[in-house]
Amino acid sequence: MWIDYSNCLKFVSEKEIAHGQKNAKTQLEHLLSGKGKGNDFLGWITLPEDSALLTARINKTAERLRSQAAISVVVGIGGSYLGSKAVIEALSDPFAKAQHQVLFAGHHLSESYHSKLISLLEGKAFNIIVISKSGTTTEPALAFRLLKDLLTENLGKNNISSHIVAITDSSRGALREMADREGYESYIIPDNIGGRYSVLTPVGLLPVATAGFNINSLIEGAAEIAAVTRDNNNPLTNPALSYAALRNILLQKGYSVEMLVNYEPGLHYLAEWWKQLFGESEGKDGKGIFPASASLTTDLHSLGQYIQDGQRFIFETVLSVNNTDEKVLIPFDQADTDKLNYIAGKSLSEVNKKAEEGTIMAHVDGGVPVIRIELRELKEHAIGELMYFFEISCAVSGYVLGVNPFDQPGVEAYKTNMFRLLGKEGY
Amino acid sequence: MWIDYSNCLKFVSEKEIAHGQKNAKTQLEHLLSGKGKGNDFLGWITLPEDSALLTARINKTAERLRSQAAISVVVGIGGSYLGSKAVIEALSDPFAKAQHQVLFAGHHLSESYHSKLISLLEGKAFNIIVISKSGTTTEPALAFRLLKDLLTENLGKNNISSHIVAITDSSRGALREMADREGYESYIIPDNIGGRYSVLTPVGLLPVATAGFNINSLIEGAAEIAAVTRDNNNPLTNPALSYAALRNILLQKGYSVEMLVNYEPGLHYLAEWWKQLFGESEGKDGKGIFPASASLTTDLHSLGQYIQDGQRFIFETVLSVNNTDEKVLIPFDQADTDKLNYIAGKSLSEVNKKAEEGTIMAHVDGGVPVIRIELRELKEHAIGELMYFFEISCAVSGYVLGVNPFDQPGVEAYKTNMFRLLGKEGY
Repeated sequence: MWIDYSNCLKFVSEKEIAHGQKNAKTQLEHLLSGKGKGNDFLGWITLPEDSALLTARINKTAERLRSQAAISVVVGIGGSYLGSKAVIEALSDPFAKAQHQVLFAGHHLSESYHSKLISLLEGKAFNIIVISKSGTTTEPALAFRLLKDLLTENLGKNNISSHIVAITDSSRGALREMADREGYESYIIPDNIGGRYSVLTPVGLLPVATAGFNINSLIEGAAEIAAVTRDNNNPLTNPALSYAALRNILLQKGYSVEMLVNYEPGLHYLAEWWKQLFGESEGKDGKGIFPASASLTTDLHSLGQYIQDGQRFIFETVLSVNNTDEKVLIPFDQADTDKLNYIAGKSLSEVNKKAEEGTIMAHVDGGVPVIRIELRELKEHAIGELMYFFEISCAVSGYVLGVNPFDQPGVEAYKTNMFRLLGKEGY
Repeated sequence: MWIDYSNCLKFVSEKEIAHGQKNAKTQLEHLLSGKGKGNDFLGWITLPEDSALLTARINKTAERLRSQAAISVVVGIGGSYLGSKAVIEALSDPFAKAQHQVLFAGHHLSESYHSKLISLLEGKAFNIIVISKSGTTTEPALAFRLLKDLLTENLGKNNISSHIVAITDSSRGALREMADREGYESYIIPDNIGGRYSVLTPVGLLPVATAGFNINSLIEGAAEIAAVTRDNNNPLTNPALSYAALRNILLQKGYSVEMLVNYEPGLHYLAEWWKQLFGESEGKDGKGIFPASASLTTDLHSLGQYIQDGQRFIFETVLSVNNTDEKVLIPFDQADTDKLNYIAGKSLSEVNKKAEEGTIMAHVDGGVPVIRIELRELKEHAIGELMYFFEISCAVSGYVLGVNPFDQPGVEAYKTNMFRLLGKEGY
């Protein structure tokens, strides 16, 4: 992957960028020194190396889950959900029935959704991958209760433990207690890794492997980009420093909204994962860029008008995928009533690329700075690169902004109110 | 449906609201007088009445499509896609295989997506509902070429016309020409209705009916809310005037981002439709509220931190659904390791409602004004109400803002660049 910021130069000078990159370099060193804010949550930095030691076991568990049922339900919320969902969606065929279906639950409280999921699973063997550090977070804990009951009904009390895998704290909490007592296979969420940085732990890797994708390649991609971002403090060759620098410069100039846009609809959930990563890391103390997203060219016929002509406080980060495996060529049509013969013989991807180029030009003309992040292809390796790139960029960017990018104090407020309204003891 | 703005009163005075409502009332009268900006695009105003005359024919076509194939592909982009997609998603079971599948194409240029769709359809009978005023918009025109070729391959040249329905201009354009020449059944997109206001024309209704949902009820809902919004200029009983007033007052006070949030994941695409409606109507002349969205409680563990503590320029509009058909009760658990017995016996919806209440309180405390829009249930009638409510609110809101809510001059910029890059004659 690479970053292209030539379409920012109308808005930010080379000198400002160089200065910002230098500052970002200092913050990267600060991060790696382990002396910055939130330094008890830096375990993610070495995950490309650490998780490489776990993949054999994870793949074995995944194989077991795949062989014993046709469906696995991942129970988790926030960082225990978005990372694996993002990878699985990016790699899946939206139309073909997967050989092994990975579904999600406990990431909200919709009765309609959970009722329909239960209908689907009634009478069937299925697996549960339950992910929670504490085991008492309301949404996943409720879903786990419901699904465990259903599994017991379907398989009998004595046959469910092999169908449940818990990913949780090493020694404390309700889920750890249940896993040890009931004999579930379990994986550890390290103490020093927060939810939104956990995609390369078993939290992200087990669901991805269970869906049938190559987690070794995902981790290799992360390791490769770690060499270029983490282990390289040269601003000219480290794309994370450029990205962290640029977004902070743009914020200072009044660009308060960043839109992550894709030209491949499979990247929708990657943007959702990115929103948590950046929104939760930087949105505090009244600060931070508001993270939004769009799928193009779809939304050029929707949000496109706003991006082009609305309030001028948006900048855009484009996820630009270079290669697709498929070849769909535009057919020639004798009548040419639709006037498309001028591009007959071209592939859809070629047209998509020209749409991307044309859109970037249009948006820059309209006053929108554009950063372009190039991905080689939509495969595990490139996605691993992209995710680690965003993680390290986010940590550095948060330090540049002056916040602790590893806490989320604002997430408790709604829970406290909800507990009180539900009559929970002590609230 | 009803609107509750009590959670704005910390940020906006009753007097400001009354003044804003009065202004909105004037703009509603201006809209209905037909003398405002963009007054050649007001056909949507009477759609609840006009479309009631079309439903018998639309339902008949839908029945024919459903009986002759298991899949229909809707080809369209922007307003020719988002309205029906929003309704179908809100009403569908995400897990059960639909009796008749409605898929979408031509709403972007992804080679990967279209290649996988073609693989799915290979050798099968399927229908195409192609929606385009001109028939030459690049994305849908390309998809239609590809799918028509595939259909010809699958069924033979002489058997495809009954599998294609065109929704297009009454007399002009490439798609009208093709429909007349090839003998496709066709429906008309009225000249005086823009794409984003077209959900209650055949553009939205035929796909929804083909998916098996009740368009009569959808239109009845729209008619019912039209009586309360369009035919009622009393600010105290017209929720559209309150919504249009509030969002403009909030914008003036620096709340530049509106987040439409739901507590039912099926409403995701309704938010996408809303983003087009408001973003494209108001995002011009450097003005307009930036429309964003979130699905809660999911995103409370993602964007929640930002909403609670980030830059203070967000207000929130909550889609609050009162009833769900399903009943999922939280089971009692002897061990209570997860500490959830305090809510055992409650339904998931009760907990979801408390989460909503608690979140609203938390966000208001954090400095986020909250508007709450109440829906009776997630059924056709209530969705029809909601959509017409948003349409009329948007038109009035655009007039309050001082823009033409019916044009979209900024959408051409990317197309012009793309055509030049693709070497189209005349660019």
